Amino acid sequence: MAAAAAQLLRGAARAVRAPPALARRSLGSAPPGVPAGRGGQRWALAGALGGLGLGLGLWRRRAAVAAGEEEDEEEERLRRRFMAPPVSGLRELRRRRRELRSRMELLIMETQAEVCRALAAVDPGAAFAVDTWERKEGGGGISCVLQDGEVFEKAGVNVSVVFGQLSEEAARQMRSRGKSLKASADGKLPFCAMGVSSVIHPKNPHVPTMHFNYRYFEIEEADGTKQWWFGGGTDLTPTYLNEEDAVHFHKTLKEACDKHDPKLYPKYKKWCDDYFFIKHRGERRGIGGIFFDDVDSPSKEEVFQFVQSCAKAIVPCYIPIVKKHCHDSFTPEEKQWQQLRRGRYVEFNLIYDRGTKFGLLTPGSRIESILMSLPLTARWEYMHTPPESSREAEILEVLRNPKDWVH
Amino acid sequence: MAAAAAQLLRGAARAVRAPPALARRSLGSAPPGVPAGRGGQRWALAGALGGLGLGLGLWRRRAAVAAGEEEDEEEERLRRRFMAPPVSGLRELRRRRRELRSRMELLIMETQAEVCRALAAVDPGAAFAVDTWERKEGGGGISCVLQDGEVFEKAGVNVSVVFGQLSEEAARQMRSRGKSLKASADGKLPFCAMGVSSVIHPKNPHVPTMHFNYRYFEIEEADGTKQWWFGGGTDLTPTYLNEEDAVHFHKTLKEACDKHDPKLYPKYKKWCDDYFFIKHRGERRGIGGIFFDDVDSPSKEEVFQFVQSCAKAIVPCYIPIVKKHCHDSFTPEEKQWQQLRRGRYVEFNLIYDRGTKFGLLTPGSRIESILMSLPLTARWEYMHTPPESSREAEILEVLRNPKDWVH
Repeated sequence: MAAAAAQLLRGAARAVRAPPALARRSLGSAPPGVPAGRGGQRWALAGALGGLGLGLGLWRRRAAVAAGEEEDEEEERLRRRFMAPPVSGLRELRRRRRELRSRMELLIMETQAEVCRALAAVDPGAAFAVDTWERKEGGGGISCVLQDGEVFEKAGVNVSVVFGQLSEEAARQMRSRGKSLKASADGKLPFCAMGVSSVIHPKNPHVPTMHFNYRYFEIEEADGTKQWWFGGGTDLTPTYLNEEDAVHFHKTLKEACDKHDPKLYPKYKKWCDDYFFIKHRGERRGIGGIFFDDVDSPSKEEVFQFVQSCAKAIVPCYIPIVKKHCHDSFTPEEKQWQQLRRGRYVEFNLIYDRGTKFGLLTPGSRIESILMSLPLTARWEYMHTPPESSREAEILEVLRNPKDWVH
Repeated sequence: MAAAAAQLLRGAARAVRAPPALARRSLGSAPPGVPAGRGGQRWALAGALGGLGLGLGLWRRRAAVAAGEEEDEEEERLRRRFMAPPVSGLRELRRRRRELRSRMELLIMETQAEVCRALAAVDPGAAFAVDTWERKEGGGGISCVLQDGEVFEKAGVNVSVVFGQLSEEAARQMRSRGKSLKASADGKLPFCAMGVSSVIHPKNPHVPTMHFNYRYFEIEEADGTKQWWFGGGTDLTPTYLNEEDAVHFHKTLKEACDKHDPKLYPKYKKWCDDYFFIKHRGERRGIGGIFFDDVDSPSKEEVFQFVQSCAKAIVPCYIPIVKKHCHDSFTPEEKQWQQLRRGRYVEFNLIYDRGTKFGLLTPGSRIESILMSLPLTARWEYMHTPPESSREAEILEVLRNPKDWVH
């Protein structure tokens, strides 16, 4: 579901890219081509945080001083925090701050920034390219991609916020999942979809790959009633099994879930094992985590609170594992096994992942953001079978027969 | 269509593998587990041809001398020639030698052996692993795979001959392509599908990847009438454009086609460009060749003759290009571009290729033979764009706007 929110794109998405050099060096000059459409504001890369050595491209409004009286402290804090200006514009988000879609957009923006900052803090070679893109029919997105760092081989954290009329293809797909969507006489179904999604592939085979995605959907039916639901999940794909890590990862997610309802973790853990199944291999992609979709009860507020807890759990469930193993020594054979497992990752994403498939087949979607989930490198060997009782066979066993890591 | 013939498999295919060491060293001992089901004969790896330094696993019947009086010279010649005993058994093929399906099975066996021999002749490091596998419901296959040679990174040449009752899924797919298939009252549609398919990925980025596949289908309808058709094609995927090679490749294929009908090459060349289209990239997989499917006119005999000409053109259209470039020097940047193009190859095969998709979703198909088409290694970079007027941009231009190489 890497591209769940992007999957509804139609028409050409216009990509506007902050030149990598700018993003990397956090120069104070204005990036060329930043869309003027976002509340009519122009933004410049902030040099302020460059000094922290994070190497992140953060943004602030040019001439903030001149317009200072319009701004409050909260807005300034958010501006400094985010990787780029929010798709809906800060002013607009502040204006309709009580609406759930505004709160969700702020949450995905914060999650993006928080994760990028956490990755940069453990990787001295990290430099994010920050690309903002617009969708002709409404909305856009922000892609933050780190490539060839010291710790991370490839890491992407995407935000997308798109709105407009639901495509027939998308409506059909939703109905086939059991949704009853009553379109107006002219067949229109206004929708809004937003989400944050990320895949992080480290270099060291002892540091697992991590994926997460949290998304929100709203559809307005002909009679004006709104259908809405949340989806998402966080899951881990290690090359080698480390039970302590597996327990830490699942325990952190379970704690986030348990705050809301003790039934959630077991249900979403199983859903995750079922979803990330590479059918033709008889293997899961990784050791799971949580996954859910179409969640619309008990209430919008409660589900949002739950999603917020999940989003806040991303950094604590993953970053300690990165820190623990990023300096582990490894052999060329271990690196090769990692590459073979990356091949399986590609197989899952290109063959089974609903978001990726739908995104690729939908005209106008931003291909580079969707395929950002693919690893930098992957490998396929004919008839590769690890020796019995090897560490390679150990992880395969868990991928074939998922375990319960916490009780 | 790499796995076109394998796509109808149902139930577990039992793989019986000649240990690589045997295949490599062409020892005279009997490979363990070779199925006794093939005409009740047991086969041993022939040491005879090992001495030619081809490194191929060829087969001959054990105790041929004792049974010598039953054999004629033709049978002996074929036995020595093939990579493994034919799925239908040599005796059976000889018995019904006038039937087209027997002649086609001999053709795909010969093509497999001819291509493997030609690859081995240009690669001193070549050692084919020869795997034979059986299909519970009827038929089986022979996979010959070379990995990590000196010239070739990964090369596979597969034969499969499967028969039984058409699965509902397959019948539905065929009807959706416009075939009217009248099943008997109990819904049964006896079928026979066979083909040879191959993907050859060389190491040197100046040697292109080549793919071919030739297949034959027969379905018996309720009233006893037989529907039949041929499909196939040969296409080239270079990392860098070499116009002379492109012309040689297409010219050789055109000459093979022209012997039968001058309308065939232009038609099948265009079909190839249309089929190998990576829609989400707006690029073809390579510089094409020929591709056709569902061909059932003017007559079975004439189409078979045409397919035979195409099969005979494989070695002459490709091997001269391999010989010409396999010692070309190359830079790390050129190797990297090759890896990025390999990533596109993976995208096409996993997302669009009908045979691969169908095969993977069909229970019991032999996954390793289907995914043999994937390269040993591949790479995905975010937002990679070659500089204008570079050699990388030159091939992209041709992949975006296919050219006519011969007139």
